[in-house]
Amino acid sequence: MADERVEVDYHPMWEALGMDLPAHDALLGAVGEMYGDIYLTQENRPESTGYLDFVASNIHSGRIKEMVDAKGSGDATKVIGSFCLYVPEEVITACNGISVGLCSGADWATEQVEERLPRNTCPLIKSFTGFKLGNVCPYIESSDLVVGENTCDGKKKAYEYFGTLKPMHVMDVPNVHTDEALAMWKSQVRQFAKRVEEETGVELTVENLRAAIKQANDKRRALQRLSATRAADPVPISGLDSLLTVQAAFMDDPARLTDAVNAMAEECETRVAAGEGAAPRGAKRILYTGTPMAVPNWKLYNIIEKAGGVVVGEEACTGYRYYKDLVDESGETVDELLDAIAERYFKINCAIFSPNPGRVEDIVRLAKELNADGIIDCALQFCTLYEMESADVQAAAEEAGIPCMHITTDYANEDTGQLTTRIQAFLEMLRPRR
Amino acid sequence: MADERVEVDYHPMWEALGMDLPAHDALLGAVGEMYGDIYLTQENRPESTGYLDFVASNIHSGRIKEMVDAKGSGDATKVIGSFCLYVPEEVITACNGISVGLCSGADWATEQVEERLPRNTCPLIKSFTGFKLGNVCPYIESSDLVVGENTCDGKKKAYEYFGTLKPMHVMDVPNVHTDEALAMWKSQVRQFAKRVEEETGVELTVENLRAAIKQANDKRRALQRLSATRAADPVPISGLDSLLTVQAAFMDDPARLTDAVNAMAEECETRVAAGEGAAPRGAKRILYTGTPMAVPNWKLYNIIEKAGGVVVGEEACTGYRYYKDLVDESGETVDELLDAIAERYFKINCAIFSPNPGRVEDIVRLAKELNADGIIDCALQFCTLYEMESADVQAAAEEAGIPCMHITTDYANEDTGQLTTRIQAFLEMLRPRR
Repeated sequence: MADERVEVDYHPMWEALGMDLPAHDALLGAVGEMYGDIYLTQENRPESTGYLDFVASNIHSGRIKEMVDAKGSGDATKVIGSFCLYVPEEVITACNGISVGLCSGADWATEQVEERLPRNTCPLIKSFTGFKLGNVCPYIESSDLVVGENTCDGKKKAYEYFGTLKPMHVMDVPNVHTDEALAMWKSQVRQFAKRVEEETGVELTVENLRAAIKQANDKRRALQRLSATRAADPVPISGLDSLLTVQAAFMDDPARLTDAVNAMAEECETRVAAGEGAAPRGAKRILYTGTPMAVPNWKLYNIIEKAGGVVVGEEACTGYRYYKDLVDESGETVDELLDAIAERYFKINCAIFSPNPGRVEDIVRLAKELNADGIIDCALQFCTLYEMESADVQAAAEEAGIPCMHITTDYANEDTGQLTTRIQAFLEMLRPRR
Repeated sequence: MADERVEVDYHPMWEALGMDLPAHDALLGAVGEMYGDIYLTQENRPESTGYLDFVASNIHSGRIKEMVDAKGSGDATKVIGSFCLYVPEEVITACNGISVGLCSGADWATEQVEERLPRNTCPLIKSFTGFKLGNVCPYIESSDLVVGENTCDGKKKAYEYFGTLKPMHVMDVPNVHTDEALAMWKSQVRQFAKRVEEETGVELTVENLRAAIKQANDKRRALQRLSATRAADPVPISGLDSLLTVQAAFMDDPARLTDAVNAMAEECETRVAAGEGAAPRGAKRILYTGTPMAVPNWKLYNIIEKAGGVVVGEEACTGYRYYKDLVDESGETVDELLDAIAERYFKINCAIFSPNPGRVEDIVRLAKELNADGIIDCALQFCTLYEMESADVQAAAEEAGIPCMHITTDYANEDTGQLTTRIQAFLEMLRPRR
């Protein structure tokens, strides 16, 4: 979104990155307006969420300049982008690289995309392809290496094409949770580490890897702490702000983010003690589960919260899965630390795993821990995996006595009215569970 | 389809299998009618294709009785069904089991299916789920074990559900062609072998395994021989009959099928020498590539051939991929033979592999070898993998100077008119390449 704070002209930087300036200006304008409409209209936000406004206003400008400058001055080696929680950031930051999540939350250059990818492709995949084809993502353009992963059919195949547009490394993620699959995954993490060492020219050591693990764990601990405050009624922070906190974690400097999240958590703890909420006491409480929401995909949360509900947790890659597990910091060799990293990432309950009972267990447990009154299970259109798992989610929610609604949607606004009606009806029928 | 040859009432057998008799009668009636309209209206068929009519008329009746009787008399151990080329039949037949491909070529019980699976699921997956839910497939019902495989997202997740309806074993197929993936696949083949040994109570030995390999190889050699005759102009056998030959291979007794295919190949060789064809000399020649066609999915071939074209080859699981590679018969231990089996199956160029250059190479080479004038690349609706690969297929065909048309379709007849128009136009613009 347009930087409203500092009077710096970022156009020369974007131009140097090879971006399409008029298109990018249009994108920033639209996202800035969305941010205003969705975020700045919220009431009773914790003051510390000012950090989120700072991130939002800097996301395509100040943050990119910081990254470019860091590379220029030798403070950082390379920028390495990825699209998935399965890519271990610790390996990148240990080699003094900057790890970023790449843009995939809005429709862009759809006509160009559909010349290459089938129409029936999920909006997230179309989005990152369109952001590249349209040259409007400074994260993609400033990345020296893009890391893909064989997760769903669509991403796997789309990366083959993306790899013709950017230097890529693809990690092969297993489909099953067996010892054999874990061994194979450990080997994938090692191959990735080797590639990052080559790319950055920095060798992994116990010191730099352990420090990187600690930094990532600190971030996760801060996010866990913030998440815990959302069990309270009234809930001290909105779902929208919580979602943006995790979205920010994919893009902002990890140390700055961790400090800011700890400050948010502290303020939220104080609010909980004081009975102060971002939503009124008794607001209908929703656990979100399903496909990830990349910036600026705030659509569903906005509908839920503008309808008077509040999202108190998210069993999703842009949520709980991002921070639920820590990496064991006790390894004494690079190999031990890499194994610990692999083991931690292997616990992410991605829907590509078959079977994937851990996800359903997490959903029910989280709904209870966070005192959710209902579950909204959402899949991006054409996401076979989440669509298929929705029957299991529904069954588990029913068994636990928690109402659950399944939604299929995309990034467009055509279904906003219909979704609003459905969600209002769902919220009305919910009964507080405490 | 209804058995017109022998006056045997198969209803008691179907009832004993737990099938829905009125629904199954309706299915057989419809398929029988389709067979008459599509197959028996063909002109200039080789006489030896009488075998195909025999298979077609026995597919749900005589053949099932044969299997059930073989189990009853101890001539066979178990019936083991599967949905994918990656499941090694040699392991099953070595343990004196009967290996069958399961029904998935027609819409059935769609409403019931869509209560459990998303609407946007490929028709093949909906089909096998519907055939089970509707109790109309004697192959599914007579199977003691069903073997799934982690291939595409949709099948992987649908098997989790199918496994609640039938005893299942799922093989994990890799996504990449690396040494590590091959090692993992070999281990999967071993685990499958162990499961089949347990299921059948028969231990694998060098003797039974080598004999099973030889039997499967003989079948492949016969199919290769038949395929080679299709390079001639005029082509001695239709695409429809060739397709049904491979479809039959999933269901009929392997020795009987091999003899019949060799007889067909011999007749076709004679026809080639005599310049006799199933289609006129100069008929436009099509190489089919894309998603598999399970019985009774003859729709596209019928459109092509009724429009005056002729299909001369198929780079597909119901075609070339089924018979292109032999298993090395020289292994001297069970382990060596199992490794040889794993290595052979690992060469199947399934679209789940990333990247999958072998498929595109095969398409271009086959088109040249079989003197195809054009390529029709077809994906079942919502098949992300084949839809995504179509851009590569198109690019390779263009580079080779071979016209290529991409089609997306399903099992319904709603698009028959539109497809006919498109295919007629495509056939008209083709120029003979010899």
